[in-house]
This record gives sequence, C-alpha cells and structure tokens, in this order.
Amino acid sequence: MPHALISFKKFEDGRCREGGMDNSGFCNDNYNSGGSDDDMVDISGATLDFSEDVPPIERDHFGAVTSSGGVTNGHAKLMDLLDEAVPGVGTYEDFNTIDWVREKSKDRDRHREIANRSKQSYWALLHSVNDAFSGWLLMLCIGLLSGALAGLIDISSHWMTDLKEGVCLDGFWFNHEDCCWKSNETTFHDRDKCPQWKSWAELMVGASEGASAYIVNYLMYVSWALMFAFLAVSLVRAFAPYACGSGIPEIKTILSGFIIRGYLGKWTLMVKTITLVLAVSSGLSLGKEGPLVHVACCCANILCHLFTKYRKNEAKKREVLSAAAAVGVSVAFGAPIGGVLFSLEEVSYYFPLKTLWRSFFAALVAAFTLRSINPFGNSRLVLFYVEFHAPWHLLELGPFVLLGVFGGIWGAMFIRANIAWCRRRKTTALGRYPVMEVMAVTLVTAVLAFPNEYTRMSGAELISELFNDCGLLDSSKLCDYGPLEGVSNITHSSNELPDRPAGAGLYTALWQLALALVFKIVLTVVTFGMKVPSGLFIPSMAVGAIAGRLLGVTMEQLAYYHRDWPLFKGWCSQGADCITPGLYAMVGATACLGGVTRMTVSLVVIMFELTGGLEYIVPLMAATMTSKWVADALGREGIYEAHIRLNGYPFLEAKEEFEHKTLAMDVMRPRCGGIGAGGRGRRGDPPLVTLTQEGMRLEEVEGLVVGSKYSGFPVVVSQESQRLVGFVLRRDLLISIDNARKHQEGVVSASEVVFSDPAPPQDPSGPPALKLRSILDLSPFTVTDHTPMEIVVDIFRKLGLRQCLVTHNGRLLGIITKKDILKHMAQMANRDPDSILFN
Amino acid sequence: MPHALISFKKFEDGRCREGGMDNSGFCNDNYNSGGSDDDMVDISGATLDFSEDVPPIERDHFGAVTSSGGVTNGHAKLMDLLDEAVPGVGTYEDFNTIDWVREKSKDRDRHREIANRSKQSYWALLHSVNDAFSGWLLMLCIGLLSGALAGLIDISSHWMTDLKEGVCLDGFWFNHEDCCWKSNETTFHDRDKCPQWKSWAELMVGASEGASAYIVNYLMYVSWALMFAFLAVSLVRAFAPYACGSGIPEIKTILSGFIIRGYLGKWTLMVKTITLVLAVSSGLSLGKEGPLVHVACCCANILCHLFTKYRKNEAKKREVLSAAAAVGVSVAFGAPIGGVLFSLEEVSYYFPLKTLWRSFFAALVAAFTLRSINPFGNSRLVLFYVEFHAPWHLLELGPFVLLGVFGGIWGAMFIRANIAWCRRRKTTALGRYPVMEVMAVTLVTAVLAFPNEYTRMSGAELISELFNDCGLLDSSKLCDYGPLEGVSNITHSSNELPDRPAGAGLYTALWQLALALVFKIVLTVVTFGMKVPSGLFIPSMAVGAIAGRLLGVTMEQLAYYHRDWPLFKGWCSQGADCITPGLYAMVGATACLGGVTRMTVSLVVIMFELTGGLEYIVPLMAATMTSKWVADALGREGIYEAHIRLNGYPFLEAKEEFEHKTLAMDVMRPRCGGIGAGGRGRRGDPPLVTLTQEGMRLEEVEGLVVGSKYSGFPVVVSQESQRLVGFVLRRDLLISIDNARKHQEGVVSASEVVFSDPAPPQDPSGPPALKLRSILDLSPFTVTDHTPMEIVVDIFRKLGLRQCLVTHNGRLLGIITKKDILKHMAQMANRDPDSILFN
Repeated sequence: MPHALISFKKFEDGRCREGGMDNSGFCNDNYNSGGSDDDMVDISGATLDFSEDVPPIERDHFGAVTSSGGVTNGHAKLMDLLDEAVPGVGTYEDFNTIDWVREKSKDRDRHREIANRSKQSYWALLHSVNDAFSGWLLMLCIGLLSGALAGLIDISSHWMTDLKEGVCLDGFWFNHEDCCWKSNETTFHDRDKCPQWKSWAELMVGASEGASAYIVNYLMYVSWALMFAFLAVSLVRAFAPYACGSGIPEIKTILSGFIIRGYLGKWTLMVKTITLVLAVSSGLSLGKEGPLVHVACCCANILCHLFTKYRKNEAKKREVLSAAAAVGVSVAFGAPIGGVLFSLEEVSYYFPLKTLWRSFFAALVAAFTLRSINPFGNSRLVLFYVEFHAPWHLLELGPFVLLGVFGGIWGAMFIRANIAWCRRRKTTALGRYPVMEVMAVTLVTAVLAFPNEYTRMSGAELISELFNDCGLLDSSKLCDYGPLEGVSNITHSSNELPDRPAGAGLYTALWQLALALVFKIVLTVVTFGMKVPSGLFIPSMAVGAIAGRLLGVTMEQLAYYHRDWPLFKGWCSQGADCITPGLYAMVGATACLGGVTRMTVSLVVIMFELTGGLEYIVPLMAATMTSKWVADALGREGIYEAHIRLNGYPFLEAKEEFEHKTLAMDVMRPRCGGIGAGGRGRRGDPPLVTLTQEGMRLEEVEGLVVGSKYSGFPVVVSQESQRLVGFVLRRDLLISIDNARKHQEGVVSASEVVFSDPAPPQDPSGPPALKLRSILDLSPFTVTDHTPMEIVVDIFRKLGLRQCLVTHNGRLLGIITKKDILKHMAQMANRDPDSILFN
Repeated sequence: MPHALISFKKFEDGRCREGGMDNSGFCNDNYNSGGSDDDMVDISGATLDFSEDVPPIERDHFGAVTSSGGVTNGHAKLMDLLDEAVPGVGTYEDFNTIDWVREKSKDRDRHREIANRSKQSYWALLHSVNDAFSGWLLMLCIGLLSGALAGLIDISSHWMTDLKEGVCLDGFWFNHEDCCWKSNETTFHDRDKCPQWKSWAELMVGASEGASAYIVNYLMYVSWALMFAFLAVSLVRAFAPYACGSGIPEIKTILSGFIIRGYLGKWTLMVKTITLVLAVSSGLSLGKEGPLVHVACCCANILCHLFTKYRKNEAKKREVLSAAAAVGVSVAFGAPIGGVLFSLEEVSYYFPLKTLWRSFFAALVAAFTLRSINPFGNSRLVLFYVEFHAPWHLLELGPFVLLGVFGGIWGAMFIRANIAWCRRRKTTALGRYPVMEVMAVTLVTAVLAFPNEYTRMSGAELISELFNDCGLLDSSKLCDYGPLEGVSNITHSSNELPDRPAGAGLYTALWQLALALVFKIVLTVVTFGMKVPSGLFIPSMAVGAIAGRLLGVTMEQLAYYHRDWPLFKGWCSQGADCITPGLYAMVGATACLGGVTRMTVSLVVIMFELTGGLEYIVPLMAATMTSKWVADALGREGIYEAHIRLNGYPFLEAKEEFEHKTLAMDVMRPRCGGIGAGGRGRRGDPPLVTLTQEGMRLEEVEGLVVGSKYSGFPVVVSQESQRLVGFVLRRDLLISIDNARKHQEGVVSASEVVFSDPAPPQDPSGPPALKLRSILDLSPFTVTDHTPMEIVVDIFRKLGLRQCLVTHNGRLLGIITKKDILKHMAQMANRDPDSILFN
C-alpha cells in the first residue's frame, strides 16, 4: 500500500516548479493561481497536511529508516544511522518548513562526535580543527566570490549604461569615463568630452548637435533599453524564474526556515547576475542593491556544498546565508558594519553571536575584494562618497523632520500602490504577458527618461549628483549659482563656498528634478515586481534625494534672501555657508528608504558609513525615526513583509507582537477537543488521529496513516487515557513499515505495532511484533490548552518549531502547527486565513 | 500559622544586605562566607528553595491575593486585580530570578489594556500615545544624564590627577592644561609650561629642579594618591559596597533576570561616581570605562522610576538597562555604534530589535551631550583620537597576528591570575582588611609609578601617547628620531614623515616602556577586584599598547636599517613612511582587550570609531581573531564570566553550547522519580510534593507548604494519576489562605481546598470550600523526561524560565529549576555544583 504513495516530482536545481513557470508570474504573485493547483493544495481542517499527489516520500531518497524523530539522544541505534549518512536523511520537502530543533540537535551530535574522536588520534584532531575553521574558510570564499561578482556587475552595468548613448572608438569595451580618461585631449573642466567617445548620432549622421542628431540619439537610447529589457526578461523566463525581483522577501522566508529548492541555486545565480546588469542598464527605475543580496546568498548556498557541515544541515546553512545577506549589503553600499546590522535587523531569523562575528568578517572581505577591483575608478568602496564641510544648525532639524514625514508617507503609499498593482497583475490578463509588460514599461520609461537629463542618467549617478556639495569647480547645472551680491573678492578654500543666489541653470535643474520626482514615483510602483531583477533601494533613495535637494535649495535661497528672518538670524550671516543642499538630499534619501523598508539602525549606520562622520548621524536619525513612525501609522508592514504576505509564505514575523488574547485551545486542531475546553469556536473538525503505543495491528496503523493527510501522529498510552508518549512522523512510519515488511521476517498485517519500551509480553502463537520505538520522538513539545497564544507564538518563534501538541490535565487534546498559527493570526487581523499557502 | 512565617528584612535602596557588608568582601567574593549564613542558605535536594528565616512574604506588602500565576488571561478576576495594582504585586525577592514569561505577559496585558481604552476617549488616546513615547523620553533622559555624568567624571578626574603634581595659581580648580591654556606666556612648543602652574616643589621649597624638589614632588604624589585611595575605599565601605569593581559581571547577571536590590540604586550611583573619580585619580592601575557602564545603568534604573511602564515590569526595565549599557560604552569611548554592539554582544540577555534602535538613540544622545560638555577640550568625542596617514602593508599582518597571540596569552593568563588572587582574598586574612589592601596596593603603585614618566601619567594619557603617530612637531621622547642619513633636504607635509633612525630619547623611552609593561601587568592583576570602582579596559589596553609600540618601533628600525631584507624589499624604500608604530600600539591594545573580555565585533567597531577609517579594520580584525582563538584555547571564559562564576550568580551563558548528552530525567528533582526512568543517578531525594486539585483539606495544604521549602507546588488531578493540572506559587498560596481565613466566612482548617473548575459538588454539612483556581498557573512549561538537556537549556535560555516540570507519558515526574541546570552544568564541567548560590 505505501507504494501507491511513493511518487515524487523532481525539479532541477535552479529550475522552477512547473507551477512557478506559468502565466501567473512568479515574482510577486501568489502561488495560488498556478502553483497550488497541482502541489500546494491546502486542506482545511488538516494539520501538518501534505497534499495528496505529492506525498512526502521518494523511495530512492529515503531508502532506509531516517532519524527524523526530532531528538536523537540516548539511542545508540539512531546515532549509528546518523553516522551512516543514508542519502536524503534529514532533508525536507520543497516548500516546507524545517524543524530547527532537530537540525540544531543534529549539528550538536555531529560536533560532539568530532570532539570525542579528536581525543583518539592526531588525524582526528586535525579533522576537528579543520571542522572548526571550515566556517571561516567558507566565509572567506563567500566574501571573495561575492565581492568579485559585485565588481563585475558594477563594471558591466556601467559600460552598458553608457552604451545606450554612444561608444568608445579606442575600444568598444571602455565606458564613457574610462574612454575619456585614457584620452589626452580631455581638459580638466570637460572631463566628459573627448574625441574618442562618439555618441550614436556622431557615428551615424556625423553630427553631434541638431534635431536629427537628437532624434538618432533618442532612438538609439530607446532601442538599446528595449533590447536590454527584452534580453533580461527572456533569460529570466527561460532559465531561472526565481531570478526576478529583489529576492529579499524570499530570502527572509528561507532564513526563517522555509525550503525553496533552487531559489539559491547555480542557475539562479548565473541568470540573476546577467539579467541584473541588463535590467539596470536598460534604464528602468530599479536598483541593483537588493538583488546583490540575492546574488551573495546564491554564492553562499553554492559554496556550502563544499563543506559537509553546512551542506547537510539546514540550520547551519541558514547561519551562512544570514552572513551572506550582510555581504550583499556590504558590497552594495561599501558598508560592512551596516551590512551586518542589516542582516541582523532586517533579514535574519536565527542569528547567534558567532554568526555576527563571521558575518562581519565576510562583509569585510567582500568590501575589500570589491575595492581592489575598483569598479568606480576612485579607490572608494562606495558608490556615492560624500564629504560635507559645513556643520548643520539645530533649527534645520525642522526641515529634516519634514523630509522624514515625506519619506514615511511616500513609503506607506508606495507599499500600498505596489501591492495593489501586484495583485492586479495576478488577477487580470496583465500577469499572463510578463514579457509584454516589461517591454511596455521599458518603452514608457525610456521615452520619458531621455529628454530629462536627471532621468536619463542612472539612479546611482543621479543620487551621487544630488548628494554632492557644490564646489567651486563643479560645472553641473545644480551648482549654477550667481555671484555674491555686494561681495567682490572673497578668498575661500576650494570647497567651502558661502550661500549664493541661484542662477538660471539651477532653476532649470529644479524644474527637471521636479519632473523627475513624479517620473520616479510613478514608474517605481509599476516596475518593482516585474519579471526582471529589481531592487528598491536606489529608486527609493532617488525619490528622497530629489525631494531633499529641492527642499535644500529652497531653504538655501530663503536663507540667502531673508537673512533677517528670525529663523535664520544668528546663524546665517552673509558670506557664510549655512545650508548644504546635499545634506538635505541625503536626509531625504534616508527617509524614503526608511519609509519603504522600515529599517532603522542599519539604515543609519549604512548612511554613516557613506559620510564617515558622526556629525551627520543626528539629522539622519531624526529623519529615520520620523519616517518610520509616520509610515507605521499608515500601514504596519514594510515592503518585504507585504510581499511575503502577498506570496503566502509561512513567515512568523519576529518583530511584531502577537496582540490578541486567544488561548492555545482556540487555535489547535481539532477545535474543542473535549475535556474541559470552554466550548469556543466549535467546528466540525475531524477527531485527532492518534496511535497507541501497544495493541494496534499493522493494518490498522497503515489504514490510519493512509486514510489521513497528517504528516505526523501523536502516540498515546491508550485511546482511553490519551496520555502522550511521543510523536512519530508520517515519513518515518511509512519507511519503517515498508522496510520491515521487506526485510524483517514474519511481519504481516496482523503483527502488533509496539512503541513502548520494554515491549509487552507477546502472544507466542501470533506473528512477531514490529518494534518502532526508535523512530518515536520521545520529547515532543507540549503546551496546555490554557496557554495564551502569545506564549505559544513566542515558543514557536524562539525555538523554531513546526508543531506543538496541546494537552489538558495530562491528556492529549490537539495539535498546533506553524500554519495554524499563521492562519489564526491572519484571521485575527481580518485577513483571509487561506492566504497562508505553505506548511 | 502563616503568621509565624511573616517576617521580612528591609534593606534601604543602595545599602547592602548585612551579609554583603562584612569582612568577606563583596566585589569579588563569594556570598557564601557572610551572606549565605543568614539568608542565602542553599538546601541540597530542594527545588526552588527559599531559606527558612526569610520567607517570601511581607504582610504589609502583599495584603491581597497577587496574580503571579504566570499567565493571567481568560480570568476576569485576575485582570481586575492587575488593575488594582496592589503594592508589591509582581515583585520578587532579593537575590532571586525573575520569570520572563510572566513579566512579558504582564506587559502585553497592560499594553492591550491601554490600546483598548484608547479607542474610547481622546484622553485615553493621549495616554496611549504618551505611553508609546515614554520609552523614547526615557532614553533621552538616560542619554542626557549619563552624558553629563561622564563629562563630570572626565573633568574631575583630569583635575584631580593633575592635583597630584601641582596646582594652578589662577584658581585651584583649573587642571594643568586649562591653567596653561589661559596663560599668555605659554609658547607653542612648551604647552605644558607656564608660570601659573606650580608643581608642589615650587610652592613648598621654591625650586622646580634638584633632588629636594624631586623628593617633595614624589612625596606629594604618593600622599595624594594614598589620600584619594583611602577616601574611595572608605566611601565605598561606608555607603555603598555595591559601588566597587567594574560592575559588568553583576549587570550581566541582572540583565539575565536576577534581582540584586540596590545594585543600581541612587546610593550606588552617587558613591560610584565620586569614588570612581577618586580611584582613577589615585593613579591605581584601573580605568573608568567599565564603571561608566555601571553608572549609566544606575541612571537608567533610577529614571525608570519616573515611568510606571518600566518601574513595574522587570522585563521592560531590563530592556532599558541593556540600552544603558550601550550608553555607558558610548560615553566611555565616544563610540555609539560600538556601544550598542557591546551591549548586544557582551552584556545583554534579552535584546529585541526595538531595543537596539532605542539603545542607538540613547547612545547617540549621550555621546553628543558629552561632546557639548567637551571634557577633553578638543571638540572630540573620543579620549584617544587617532589619525594615521600611511597605509599598512599586507606583510605587516605577520606582526599584527603576533600581537594577537600576545593579547590572547596575556588575556588568558590575566584571568587565571586575577581569579586566583580573588579566591585567595576570599579565603585568607587578606579579605578581612580591604582598606589596608587598597592602601598597600596604592602605596606600591604610587612609589613605583612616579619615577617612570609612562607609569606616572594616567592610563588614558599613556594610551593616547602610544597611539600617536609621530609628527614633525611632536616633542615627546617617543618621537625622538635622528636625522635621515644621506638625505639633506626633504620637503614633506607636516604629518607624513619617512622612517628615521631612533634617537637617544627614543631608546630611553623604550626602556621605560618595557618597565611600565611589567609594572602594569603585575599591578593590574592585584588591582582588579579590590573594593574600589575599577575598570579593566584601560589597563588591558595600556598593556597591549605598550607591547604594540615596542614591536612597532622595533619593526620600524629593522625596516630602516635592513631595507634590503626580502621582508621589506619592495614596499619599504628609503624616505618612505612604511611603518607606523602607533598603529601597532592600537592593534596591540585591541588584542589585549580582546583577550581579556573576549569581545569581537563590538571591539573592532569601537576601535573603528576611534580611527574613523575602514582602512585599519583589517589589522584590528586579524589581531582580535587571533587573540580570541588563542585565549579561548587557554581558557574558555572571559573575565566577566569568570567573575560571575566566582560569585556564584545564576547566570545561564547564552553563547556557550551545552555539550553533554544528559537527559531531563538526569537533572530533575527528585531523581529517578519512578515510572520508566532508566535508573540513572539515584539519590535519596525526598519525593515531589504535589497538591491535588480536589479533596485536600486546608490544614493538609498548610502542613505541606510549611513543611517544605519549595517556592512552588505542582497541582495534579489526583495523587494516583499524577496528571498535571497547573502550578501554584508558595507565595500566592500562603497569601490566599491567609486572606481567606481572615475575610471569607466559614473557612476553617477542615475546609476543602479546590483548584478545579467547575468546583465539585460539596458536602452541604461541611464547611465551605476554598476555591483557589484563580492563583493557579494553568500553563506551566513541561518537558518529557527523555528530552535532551541541550534542548531544555535552550528553552530556559530563550524563554527565560525559572522552572519547568518534567512528565513521563503524561504523568508528572519531577521539576527542573534554573539552579538545577546550573548545578548540573557545573558538575559536568567538574566544578563544585554548590558554587551556584542563588535561585
């Protein structure tokens, strides 16, 4: 009979489940539409349910009894099995939650084993030392590989972005800056102009000015953008559907203990790296910072395969992935400390202090690898290096807080709009044509972006320019100030300029920036969630930086013309540099990023690492705090949590408090199990399926197991007493029975199944009993029916449980799984409990 | 009968228990000698024991039934009681462990209450907003107060340190630097010399040179040192014995959920602030950085009293204290981010992300308060501001790792020597004369310190000088280099000097530094742990900085004279500044501090904040890693853990893995409780005292309670079935019985005590039953007897339990308390289990 159940769909690493490949779209869509139809069926009323057509066992993988009983101590037999390393032991089904307690126990056993052996021989001692240092070696490799990949991505995207505008005659592989850097004919003031660099118009119509040249350049810009976007979306669809999006919501879910096979595989890595460059170069309103976290995690996951310690243990692997998230941010912003805090604050679930230290190491290695590659050509780690000279005044906290409010409102509104758009994509025809969608958005973006120089340049360049404090030599329009009134000769050092009246160029720039702001706001909403790799950091920061710069220039001009206002009196004298518009841009960028992601400490630290001075932490902190408060008041969730919920992942948020007064008995299945329960929430749940430790015949057990969909069964002393003995997993049970029927003599359907120890005296005339104590988890977690759910949730979060049994006065009453809790939380928040799709 | 039990010793806030005041010494001594005789008796075999003469109840305090049953949901009656806020409800005995689950539940209840009410009226809404922001307000206050106190301490200790050498004629309250700063007669090169500042010799014998002047200065130096030390130790002994030591071990213990009344009280704060200044000024080999953490925690604890939310909840209070620890380090080193990471890594136990953000805020406020006070007169936040100019070479990692090895060995050796010395203090006559000890150590320190200029200056000054990169204008002996050979005219910017040959002054300095190294190594061992406030950061760093500078100068000279060695070839050309001895000093300081405290990330980040450049993180990290590995190989514990263990505090280390394969049944009391237990570790434990939910008469219950010392009793369905219903605390039980006898009619000794709901039908002829379900904790934590101890330990750590019940097949078998676990861990590590003193 078990044979009927044994069938399994195999998916290649990096390739998607069929359900994920269909029209419904993967990145931001609910699996419900495609995925859940075939293998994600959610059976109401079932606890620990597996769907019927993808049973949890593959014969080839689990050819022997596994030791998945949660706890393996005290059983010599289990220890032996662990040592034998049967292929597939301890692995999990795709789209299922791991059992942290079991994984950690396994690792401790392994560690003890090595520690014991190390006392016996020098060879074993060497092995133990090697084992202890393998974590560091792995971190080193991750740092090196991620740093190198990030450098490659930076260089290629820089080159391809410039390719949209022209080409270098000295070699097509040079980007604009490198091309002119190598030229001798470049003057200091016009670093961007050199004869080697030809715009497409110059090459094609031989003119660099005039309407025809403009049109040629325009057309080439749009064509390149469309080509890049088409390549990106096609590659993603053809080879690695998991490569789209920022990846952070999925990585958060994976780190919380979920399994998504291939999400961090080699195909995803390759395709994401390539398509990320294409997507960024196409000029879409997206960034590469979020996807870099995904890329780093892919590197980590692949490198884990080199080390048994990490390959075989899902909990250990997640420690490494947490570090990789830190590495990703470290290379994205050149901020190792900020990266580690980002991982700690935003993505990680289980983050022991040992991991903190290793993450820091990996982040540092990655940052220095990136720096030695020197992708920006300035020996800097960071994309936007900022150096401000003027201090800020306490009164400026007012506008900074205002920027915080703007950031908060923008963040909350963006999340709502984006989620609504993603839902629409899922439910309407839009979702069925992802390539068309990407092409359309790219077309609109390119057509609108080209005429405005601030949208034409890449997001990172734009931010860099907005953060910049105007020096004497700056030739950009943003620094086009008029001469000082009444002051003829002032001597000042090259970088400290007093406030000056705005020139005509600056006014033009302001208009263009205002248009760019609207452009970015609208297009980012529809871009994030398309089927291309797309990060959110840069677009959010761009929006904030524009708003900040606008406010900054306004304040500067106000201060210049109205020096006698009480507001400015006293600190803004003539000829003083009292307002730095670049700082406003930076504060605005921080506020908007904070509003969208709800990061706090890590955000401030990342920005601190960009500026390098404690001086500017206070404005950043004020903006971040305001932005978070405002955004939280308008909507509790950050963008990543919102996308996790949209996708129905089983993610138990560690930050959010469980606020309701329900008890365990209100959540457990079956509801109102019997004795003493206060009669709440009666529902027609089927009774709890339990096995008894003695007295059941094999056919009865098989009948119960096959007749239900539960992935585990409590074992009790007797059906009358319902006193809990242990918990047995469906998979273990089926494998053991199958194994016994094949290899153990005399085991027939009438054999007694015995879980107790010592086994009861047997009827000598009957068939021999099947002893299954070794697969029984003797330490299942239990709570009483009166335990408040807040405590149950706490236990699940902190210990990483998959299920917990509920007792009343020592009698077994029911079971609570992680999914039950998530459904309950959804219900209490007036959301659809069936939106939780996975176990 | 309960009256016999009701007596209570009251201790003033900040004043010590009598036991703590006696000769046995408090700071580093086991309470066993004095304290435990009267109220800390440890009864072997008892679980959750209270000693007999200090029962847990004071009638005045607990005049009504308390709701300490762990969980208060679903019981309207309990909710009402919570609202009534009976004085003393939810408080704990001194030297006992709190129940985190209960505290967090209480806070959630309170929060729900406020949230519900806020919907009813505007006033309540305002109250709820105020409640939400009170945390931030509190953080602001802590930051301001701690920053101000730190500034005060800095200024006073600076002044008093200088007072040992002389006095300012313009006003005795000026320190040496301020005095000469105000003088017009100071030349740029001799900033330290001005007519206003008179050394004692100049004042007393009228000469600043010569033997007699030297002797006068020597004598005055020693006398002042003795006077300061005497004042410090007397004040500590007279007013606040808790003010001694660094305080970090105790704060770690408190944060893990232990109660030490008065440890963070106003007396401790006042006395610690004053005596810290005195101790530092006396020239003893100690620092103020650790005690600043204690001072900040005292501020936090006192300010908590202003906010009900924090005053009444031990868990919330600990969140604030964690933030205060960050504040302490922030003001000590001017490193807010490093401070937060220090709190996270080193001191905190329960550190939710919300706290991380608030800690950061508080740390920042404190840092800026300190900066606006400007105690160092240089607008810098930090005591040792360093700016290096030359990059380091990869080959230099060799010496840096060597410094790491030195730091690790010194750290491990220091811990051993210091702990051995503290044990000796406890067991020999030494401990009985703490004043004498302090005076003797001060005398030796002062006598030896004066002749050597590097020991005469304060630790912070010494480190600052050692970190310093020699510029052209530096006149100190450490910068006494000879002229460059063969190079006559080199033009260089003021701070970039090529390597030069050492001059005579430098050789003298090296000898003096070598002597200072021995001096610091020996004296720090005997100083740390005396009955004065004493931090360890500065002495450790001084040792490392001296060793580092010595190695750095050696390397520099080697490189200068042997430029052709393969080691230096290629990167160390003539006229280049290839080795920076100051960087070596910094790396050495980091390594030694790391070896002693075993800090990792936080240490590197603190040092990073001192230098401000990512450039130097790699050497720091290499040294920290090596130092930690070497030190861990020589001894697992850091200095703080070692002192916690020495004092017998119940601290469950979160970082250390539980490595043994024991099961819950091996640890629980009573051992081998009966059914099914595998007969391990039989001991003559008394049987478990349980109450039944029905059928016991009041006198029986009272007899059981009074006849045992347990602080809680499991309630079972019946003695035969041993099926667990709940857990009742001794205190609640006694109070309820007392209350019922007084106020409830007809309750007599023959009354039945009923815990069940609904109550069973009663005998109409008998006295009315006493219903006590409301004080029953219906959700006690349970594990099975087969649960591995590693999982039990994990549960205790992560959930913050005090006790856990052990079941077998649904029957109650025994109980495990935190103390049992600690004793078991001590036993497994071959230590004396009776060294764990508290519950």
